[in-house]
Amino acid sequence: MLRLHYAPHTCALASHLALEEAGADYETVRVDFAKSEQRSPAYLAVNPKGRVPALVTERGVLTETPAILLFVCQRFPQAGLAPLDDPFALAEVQAFNSYLCSTVHVAHAHRMRGHRWADDPAAHEAMKKKVPQSVGECFGLIERELLLGPWVMGERYGICDMYLFTLAQWLEADGVDLAKLPRVLEHRARMAARPVVKKVVAVELA
Amino acid sequence: MLRLHYAPHTCALASHLALEEAGADYETVRVDFAKSEQRSPAYLAVNPKGRVPALVTERGVLTETPAILLFVCQRFPQAGLAPLDDPFALAEVQAFNSYLCSTVHVAHAHRMRGHRWADDPAAHEAMKKKVPQSVGECFGLIERELLLGPWVMGERYGICDMYLFTLAQWLEADGVDLAKLPRVLEHRARMAARPVVKKVVAVELA
Repeated sequence: MLRLHYAPHTCALASHLALEEAGADYETVRVDFAKSEQRSPAYLAVNPKGRVPALVTERGVLTETPAILLFVCQRFPQAGLAPLDDPFALAEVQAFNSYLCSTVHVAHAHRMRGHRWADDPAAHEAMKKKVPQSVGECFGLIERELLLGPWVMGERYGICDMYLFTLAQWLEADGVDLAKLPRVLEHRARMAARPVVKKVVAVELA
Repeated sequence: MLRLHYAPHTCALASHLALEEAGADYETVRVDFAKSEQRSPAYLAVNPKGRVPALVTERGVLTETPAILLFVCQRFPQAGLAPLDDPFALAEVQAFNSYLCSTVHVAHAHRMRGHRWADDPAAHEAMKKKVPQSVGECFGLIERELLLGPWVMGERYGICDMYLFTLAQWLEADGVDLAKLPRVLEHRARMAARPVVKKVVAVELA
């Protein structure tokens, strides 16, 4: 059985949603960030990176959201969560997810995880200050160019929607000007209304 | 025909290598960063993100290295550059490439692109100062855990090798302690000896 290690309020939500949407047989393990469990020897044995998500499979452990999302799509092709046999369409999916992990999530991380990139507390404050702008610009590009509507890739619902919904949870805390993102907010509301999404969010926040 | 927009000394090298290794029919367009061509209206019409690489295909433009690499593998399956039909093995490839784009490349970018995440020049200096450590830790994980040898995924050469080789070009300039990375350096030398790699590097640096 697949086993997902996650923590609430993290990007692991995207992988959790994908497993549930795919109808996978899986279980979850909550990692308690308040107790720094992600740095415990037991967890580092699962994922040496000390982060979530980590998906334990019968062949080994997978990490990194875009990789786990694609794995779920390939493992449960009947769920139709990605255009697996269309190289261009699949590359568009991967490009969107890559942008989320390497640019959007990274911009957000400068609010709380500045210690990754500088030791000076004044630099952490300077990073925090720019987050509303840098995350806002990322979501501005999504609003204008990338989110086709009603779903990210147009008519077809899939893994990009789960990942975007996950990062859009953080907009308020990041201080982003929501008035500039009507389409992103509509998408977030459309996602939140899905029974599967309601179920997974309830599990994570329980 | 495929058309790759690239700039020398950037991560676009990985996509360039993949096209050449796949035996693709493609042409290249050099983007002159010294003249800020990546911010010109003409280039922004190709890629609104204002970055390289961008791959123009008959169906539209693709961006983001992990997506372009996977596209080349799917488009030219006879080249065998990724285990396309093995969901777990492909997810391992994608996980490695995701780590490179979202963590390793991002750590490196704090040396020259601190303005993305803070406005204060003192913060940029603080970021620059930590790069030898943060990039060094990323490559330490690759050295110990991720690079199986002789190639990243073991016996099978593929897109992870091209991407790792690309980011490993920056180790000296990032001030990383090379003495701790003998396996990464062996891999870099093994790559540099490949005729296809020599050819592509010569084109980019011409």
